[in-house]
Amino acid sequence: MEENKKISSAVIRRLPRYYRYLGELIESGVQRISSKDLSVRMKVTASQIRQDLNNFGGFGQQGYGYNVKYLYDEIGKILGIDRKHNMIIIGAGNLGRAIVNYTDFEKRGFVICGVFDNNPELKGESIHGIDIMMMDQLADFIHKNDIEIVALTIPKQAAKEIGKQVADAGIKAIWNFAHTDLNLPDDVIVENVHLSESLMRLSYTIANKHS
Amino acid sequence: MEENKKISSAVIRRLPRYYRYLGELIESGVQRISSKDLSVRMKVTASQIRQDLNNFGGFGQQGYGYNVKYLYDEIGKILGIDRKHNMIIIGAGNLGRAIVNYTDFEKRGFVICGVFDNNPELKGESIHGIDIMMMDQLADFIHKNDIEIVALTIPKQAAKEIGKQVADAGIKAIWNFAHTDLNLPDDVIVENVHLSESLMRLSYTIANKHS
Repeated sequence: MEENKKISSAVIRRLPRYYRYLGELIESGVQRISSKDLSVRMKVTASQIRQDLNNFGGFGQQGYGYNVKYLYDEIGKILGIDRKHNMIIIGAGNLGRAIVNYTDFEKRGFVICGVFDNNPELKGESIHGIDIMMMDQLADFIHKNDIEIVALTIPKQAAKEIGKQVADAGIKAIWNFAHTDLNLPDDVIVENVHLSESLMRLSYTIANKHS
Repeated sequence: MEENKKISSAVIRRLPRYYRYLGELIESGVQRISSKDLSVRMKVTASQIRQDLNNFGGFGQQGYGYNVKYLYDEIGKILGIDRKHNMIIIGAGNLGRAIVNYTDFEKRGFVICGVFDNNPELKGESIHGIDIMMMDQLADFIHKNDIEIVALTIPKQAAKEIGKQVADAGIKAIWNFAHTDLNLPDDVIVENVHLSESLMRLSYTIANKHS
């Protein structure tokens, strides 16, 4: 199998879900699982599972099923979560706080190093032990703390300008919750979480359920 | 064109983005736009735009471009946001509060009618003018207020049980933020927002950027 072959984005979208299910299997003490049993749990076909995992060289031994822990670790490596990523949050509102308080991210290697806001009243406060800092400290903090990912939990009006500021500070990976596209240079990766769009997909499905 | 033809999920995923861009055009006073100009703004090809919108009968007049307001309204109808959807939030933590405070949802017709939690200390509190109620009031509130959508902003440990409770109360549409699949009957629509998976896709892209 070719090393750096291009994997379809549909497969990549599914990998974190495999990772989650395998993690749950480990927690319940399951050591091996067949693609058939995994397919029943995940409600996808066994052939899809085999096809998806074949993208990475398989991992399965015919007749013996998958070694759960091995597969979990290998997918972790593929997802790049076998190493730590330093992250900061810009926007200390409810959404920013929710992310800081969600300890699962840290378990997966995403280390939240700081929270930034432009509201001077928040200066000196901390969330879950993490200091809230002002925006004038941002570029310096990014450089000194080897920050790799910036989460933007700010209103869309501010997002384009702050996205630019973050990119200028050398950040190449942005997790964007603001409901707008950031229009940054191509070498800056932006993963968008547009909650309004998710809610509209839900209402689309409601509206078209019986058609 | 066939009325109820099956539209691919890839097109449906893109519709809310069209809706957002058209809304921004309306705000800037643009009345007509060609697929070419729209494609430049949205960074997709003009032919994709034409193909996507053809799924719904087109809307474009050759040589004149699209009527922005008409297209916006039609996509709104397709997305089912031309009418109100009553919604409640279960989980009055930071994430639940972020959703309640995000006024854009209401603008799109998603009316948040109540927030529920199992923490008795929150009883009688309100968020953005919306009362926090206890879980023993849930089923009754759902029936009396014609609730259509339930957002679950609760830890995954509680989500399966509460998802079942919500489905038993007659809810057919769940917006699930808990990082687990709910395993509900097929007639219950679940739109998942799994933030961990989004973050893992970002780290995948970082890890595979130079390969």
